[in-house]
Amino acid sequence: MTITTVGLDADDTLWHNETVFRLTQARFLDLLTDHDNAEIEARLAEIERRNLRLYGYGVKGFTLSMIETAMEMCGGDPPPGAIREILAAGREMLAHPVETLPGVDEALARLSERYRLVLVTKGDLLDQERKLAASGLGDLFAAVEIVSEKDQTTYERVFARHGTGPGEAVMAGNSMKSDVLPALEAGAFAVHIPYVVTWAHELADAPDGHARYGALDRIDALPDWIDARSDG
Amino acid sequence: MTITTVGLDADDTLWHNETVFRLTQARFLDLLTDHDNAEIEARLAEIERRNLRLYGYGVKGFTLSMIETAMEMCGGDPPPGAIREILAAGREMLAHPVETLPGVDEALARLSERYRLVLVTKGDLLDQERKLAASGLGDLFAAVEIVSEKDQTTYERVFARHGTGPGEAVMAGNSMKSDVLPALEAGAFAVHIPYVVTWAHELADAPDGHARYGALDRIDALPDWIDARSDG
Repeated sequence: MTITTVGLDADDTLWHNETVFRLTQARFLDLLTDHDNAEIEARLAEIERRNLRLYGYGVKGFTLSMIETAMEMCGGDPPPGAIREILAAGREMLAHPVETLPGVDEALARLSERYRLVLVTKGDLLDQERKLAASGLGDLFAAVEIVSEKDQTTYERVFARHGTGPGEAVMAGNSMKSDVLPALEAGAFAVHIPYVVTWAHELADAPDGHARYGALDRIDALPDWIDARSDG
Repeated sequence: MTITTVGLDADDTLWHNETVFRLTQARFLDLLTDHDNAEIEARLAEIERRNLRLYGYGVKGFTLSMIETAMEMCGGDPPPGAIREILAAGREMLAHPVETLPGVDEALARLSERYRLVLVTKGDLLDQERKLAASGLGDLFAAVEIVSEKDQTTYERVFARHGTGPGEAVMAGNSMKSDVLPALEAGAFAVHIPYVVTWAHELADAPDGHARYGALDRIDALPDWIDARSDG
């Protein structure tokens, strides 16, 4: 078995992201003082899901959905300053410093010596480019694919385009739903490396006894996991 | 001289776009009845420019900038319903039917028989993918590049990746600033095909007597223009 190419998710695999969203969401809850937190969270989740088809993933769509939630819940008359606070929170997310997760630098440096690394991520185009540049990891990647959806055909296309096909590729990331399951469907290996929190829209069950599936606690263990499966 | 690859801009080159923005902007002006149109337009343009670094190009950033403009101009207290109207206008833009410009289908069909076609466009990732799918033109393109900025290095990279380098490529589009000048700097041919209106941020002077530059009134004339320069 030869492995030539390693796909890596970005948000919550290489650097913190969901915690930034959660902090912003906590700030958002504090703005709507007349409402119960659980009620606001449920409404925001519903509005995000409804808008996903139009907005796709990322900070800008999240900001628009927070504004829509505030307007809906407050009968079109949110507390003074709330909309400006939401706009400011969105801009701060887009300017937020990038903090790589423990072990990422060493693991990627080691992987890049032996395999072609491809970043595969959803989200706002400019924001993901900014984060990659700020992470200092950009030079380790042979290619960067910012995609609107991560499904089986995405991985088939990405690994055909930048590698030697999904059969000789591994995808690693924190989302069972976006990184692991569709990569396995495409015929690639897939490794789940969970983050401390997972966005509700990304939850899914682990595959049952799949020969090409692995689960690791930390990215440190990824190079050995791949090396053990490749004679390339 | 051989030409192998033709890059095409999307918005206002293949289909209407700026007119959709202008119609939305007119609707936005009508919402802020207490203010002069010219004043609102100037403030919106300033806020868009300030946010471009964070939001990049596209409908979602435009929607956020309209909301910010309404909040700023109305001292944080815009007319009832204004914010919801802006959110609705943004969503409608993202669901707007795609109307290809006259001559596009025929010109692209002819070009695709002889050259590799690459779509090169800025904007929201998901929105541009949606518009390409809705246009029915997707199958004519060998590659699609949705980019955060169109500069010299963008064209060097795109034409190296999907063609035989900028020296054997033509870029065609409605923006002198984004489609023509940086493509010429990269060493490609470039053809300006103006649209009826141009976004203020995309205005620039035509190059002065450049051997690789052309200007056409309509895309119908593009296949002949390229064929005349290629013996490939």
